[in-house]
Amino acid sequence: MSENKRIILDPFGATVIEDYERLFTEFGIQPLKPLLSEIPNPFMAMRRGVIFGHRDLERVINAMKSGKEFAVMSGIKPTGEFHLGTLVTVREIIYFQQQGAVAFYCIADIEAYEDNGIPFEESEKIAINNVADLLALGFDLKRGYIYRQSKEERVKDLAILFSRGVTLATIKAIYGERHMGLYLSALIQAGDILMPQLEDFGGPKPTVVPVGIDQDPHIRFTRDLADRFYNKFKFIPPSSTYHRLIKALDGSYKMSKRDPMSYFTLDEDPELIKKKIFNAFTGGRPTAEEQRKLGGNPEICPIFDLYLFHFFEDDKDVIELYNDCRCGNILCGEDKARLAKIVADFVKEHQRRKRQYMDKAIETLKTK
Amino acid sequence: MSENKRIILDPFGATVIEDYERLFTEFGIQPLKPLLSEIPNPFMAMRRGVIFGHRDLERVINAMKSGKEFAVMSGIKPTGEFHLGTLVTVREIIYFQQQGAVAFYCIADIEAYEDNGIPFEESEKIAINNVADLLALGFDLKRGYIYRQSKEERVKDLAILFSRGVTLATIKAIYGERHMGLYLSALIQAGDILMPQLEDFGGPKPTVVPVGIDQDPHIRFTRDLADRFYNKFKFIPPSSTYHRLIKALDGSYKMSKRDPMSYFTLDEDPELIKKKIFNAFTGGRPTAEEQRKLGGNPEICPIFDLYLFHFFEDDKDVIELYNDCRCGNILCGEDKARLAKIVADFVKEHQRRKRQYMDKAIETLKTK
Repeated sequence: MSENKRIILDPFGATVIEDYERLFTEFGIQPLKPLLSEIPNPFMAMRRGVIFGHRDLERVINAMKSGKEFAVMSGIKPTGEFHLGTLVTVREIIYFQQQGAVAFYCIADIEAYEDNGIPFEESEKIAINNVADLLALGFDLKRGYIYRQSKEERVKDLAILFSRGVTLATIKAIYGERHMGLYLSALIQAGDILMPQLEDFGGPKPTVVPVGIDQDPHIRFTRDLADRFYNKFKFIPPSSTYHRLIKALDGSYKMSKRDPMSYFTLDEDPELIKKKIFNAFTGGRPTAEEQRKLGGNPEICPIFDLYLFHFFEDDKDVIELYNDCRCGNILCGEDKARLAKIVADFVKEHQRRKRQYMDKAIETLKTK
Repeated sequence: MSENKRIILDPFGATVIEDYERLFTEFGIQPLKPLLSEIPNPFMAMRRGVIFGHRDLERVINAMKSGKEFAVMSGIKPTGEFHLGTLVTVREIIYFQQQGAVAFYCIADIEAYEDNGIPFEESEKIAINNVADLLALGFDLKRGYIYRQSKEERVKDLAILFSRGVTLATIKAIYGERHMGLYLSALIQAGDILMPQLEDFGGPKPTVVPVGIDQDPHIRFTRDLADRFYNKFKFIPPSSTYHRLIKALDGSYKMSKRDPMSYFTLDEDPELIKKKIFNAFTGGRPTAEEQRKLGGNPEICPIFDLYLFHFFEDDKDVIELYNDCRCGNILCGEDKARLAKIVADFVKEHQRRKRQYMDKAIETLKTK
């Protein structure tokens, strides 16, 4: 499809940096780009500007390079099936694990209860399904620890310790005027992030927490607690990476259960997923003629996002697609057809692998 | 000492009821007196108006009378040695246990940390000493459960569940603007009070919580949570009894560590305790002559409180002393000398018994 028109723009990150400029200037988040050459084997989402910012990632890169112990920590609120948003974080965790990190994966069932009212009996079933996804995607249990907050006394006990260091004014400034359960789950989340540094897990170590940019308040809150409780635990303030949100299929950033056409999960029928992709909003023009003449707009296109975030392995393919789209060399129909096939194949294979991991998932969560 | 002057006043409760009238009218606390004849074998402090009020105690009395299961629950914040204030509650717990209750005694080490900054390692030592006191005073481990909050997952898990039912406005109204640790320990305390009703302990049952009147906000908070979580647990709202505070030796209500002459603990040298008693404030007159003529004032006298609360077994002795004092038949010196001997004998015997319980106390707290 690609032709010999010249590359117009670097698709990796220019617009993102622009959108998020305030984060760098006002909140002390650092841009990732200048660090990229320091990372031995940078992750796809890092190379492509999907992960665009960080705090103190140098510390983690140094550990990576020198073979010192480090950890990656993240998790999921067990409220539903893995979808394309979840996938960004999970792949980053697995990436860091493959680079040598011990990986901690938290099933935030206390948060699911406090925030969404999901009883523990229900979130347990959801969690088993989530863990099977995680294992099928390549999470290595031999260098990883998966647990539920409700069963992990260490995070509850850290929350209890931390609570003495948190004034009402502080927590209100971060989370607003909420019920006590929300505040408590924020404290427990701080416990999740710092647990990898407890003696039980080998003591203080650089830890990276991959999050969406909307999660930064948790990171700042936890870094502050790491400082306050330094004397007792010698915590190293956790590092973080920030990724862009992936667009929903309607072009917004709202993957909503109320609008099931706006996203798909890894559990869905591949044929239905194909249909959703064919129905998706794009950055294309009203007519094929205009598209050929004026080119499309990949910046606003969820189909392009899917290639960029997940479904083109090779950066060159993304750049080529970007330019083909911009130059009108490709129409949305053929672009969607190609993606639909790639995604359906991926999901089919994932579901096959996942079935093999269900028992392991149940076993993993049995006691934790 | 007593002579044939007539009884002027009932020393049991008249003034108390007057002081606390607002509690009855404004907060829905019920006076205990009308219930007294219903209680098969009323406790000394009940008969004497030291315990002056209650909520829903009928429910507990009915269980007592019909031989149905019921519980008594209270505890201590492990910040120091048992003193005379602690003794009121402990004796009431043991009383209810002897009347057939299963007794729950909580070492509130999370509260000691959150409120007083006492680390768990330190409060553990204090708790062992407290538990030895409790056992020496007659707490029966065969029908009792002693635990530390920090080791009892059930109370932490109840706190986590309850937190979703508590708005910031509610908790601020009760506890004021405090740090998160204080709020969390309030939730944990609600867990303590309702834990006896979990399936692990035989399910819902009437539970009485003996507290000082200053603790009523905790009771109201917990009763509200019992209602909110009725569907899940079938909680019976906890009953409570309220006791007067015992006066400090300086006549105030402040037993303060900064003023060690204002109180004594059960660990102190009996000779030192005697000295403190001789130095105590009394309700006596400036001269013996005036005292004989005008009589003393037992209402403001910490020496009288000690007899009333603890050191006269027989009600008649208290009434007699009250009248002898009022009528000027007894002077403070001889009254103190008698008390000093009774207290010193009691403390000596208690310390002897306590030494025999130290190992049991260590063992009791080993895992909980």
